[in-house]
Amino acid sequence: MAEKKVYIFLADGFEDIEGLTVVDLMRRAGIQIQTVSIKAEKKITTSHGIEMFTDMTMDETDFADADMLVLPGGMPGTKYLGACEPLLKLLKDYYNKEGKIAAICAAPTVLSSLGFLKGRKATCYPSMMSQLDCGEALTDSVVVDGNITTSRGLGTALPFALSLIAQLLSEEKAKEIAASVVFTV
Amino acid sequence: MAEKKVYIFLADGFEDIEGLTVVDLMRRAGIQIQTVSIKAEKKITTSHGIEMFTDMTMDETDFADADMLVLPGGMPGTKYLGACEPLLKLLKDYYNKEGKIAAICAAPTVLSSLGFLKGRKATCYPSMMSQLDCGEALTDSVVVDGNITTSRGLGTALPFALSLIAQLLSEEKAKEIAASVVFTV
Repeated sequence: MAEKKVYIFLADGFEDIEGLTVVDLMRRAGIQIQTVSIKAEKKITTSHGIEMFTDMTMDETDFADADMLVLPGGMPGTKYLGACEPLLKLLKDYYNKEGKIAAICAAPTVLSSLGFLKGRKATCYPSMMSQLDCGEALTDSVVVDGNITTSRGLGTALPFALSLIAQLLSEEKAKEIAASVVFTV
Repeated sequence: MAEKKVYIFLADGFEDIEGLTVVDLMRRAGIQIQTVSIKAEKKITTSHGIEMFTDMTMDETDFADADMLVLPGGMPGTKYLGACEPLLKLLKDYYNKEGKIAAICAAPTVLSSLGFLKGRKATCYPSMMSQLDCGEALTDSVVVDGNITTSRGLGTALPFALSLIAQLLSEEKAKEIAASVVFTV
């Protein structure tokens, strides 16, 4: 099996734990996940004040090798993601190629605005559920409907990351990672 | 009630989510938590390859206003913490003043080496339980015995952080934060 490649898009004010739990667990699983700044520079400040560097900026790759694209939530991070035209174009092209896209917390509203959730089951941060233009809004921690995965918030970041690992690799690998980090559902 | 002040000590190779979940949730709760590099510089690389800056280095404060000191796990981060003489001296002085100290994953072994767990209930990362010199080694997600709190790994970082918030502020505040991040035990 070829190595899986994933890109997670980070803006100033992305929710630290929602974004970095996906990075952490995927790296433990051997998935090649890259953090991508949607700004012109790699330096990003998280929603809780951590200054960090991403692996790259958006113009450093065309994402042609992507097996999945991921959007963390947090404010104002999600607003910046939803206003980033190059990212929205990439998401539309990737969606039309039936690529896997995942979003957590406030970020499913970005997918909703693009029409990706029409007729699908989905979830998001509780106070934003009414903004989802979807087939069925669920309160499950993680909802997978075809190529689209959505989740609810920081408190569901671990099952969200494990679901993505299961989809890209296997349920067994996800269970192995869960056990190694002492996570029991 | 005066603002609570907490310091969390970060070395290269600290476990990203174990460290940053405490920072994230405490900042949500209004606790003044500062990230402290144990190196001569603020730039740190986490155990899963995130380059970030801490708020300060150890020599920038005497920690006299601390309400709690926290150690995240991860490798080689925990080894660096356990070999940092200024940190070990600070922990001993703080312990002797009956200050609150918390450690997760591999980091409880640092507290064990200093003799803080003698006669106490404690926990740590499963494969390191035999290294704990404690009164009773438990497999609970979080163990509080007097001023010492210990926990097991990335998968228990959320209940660990919530327990610390409950100890510093109140159970109600911890429950409020848990609900706001969509975490249900």
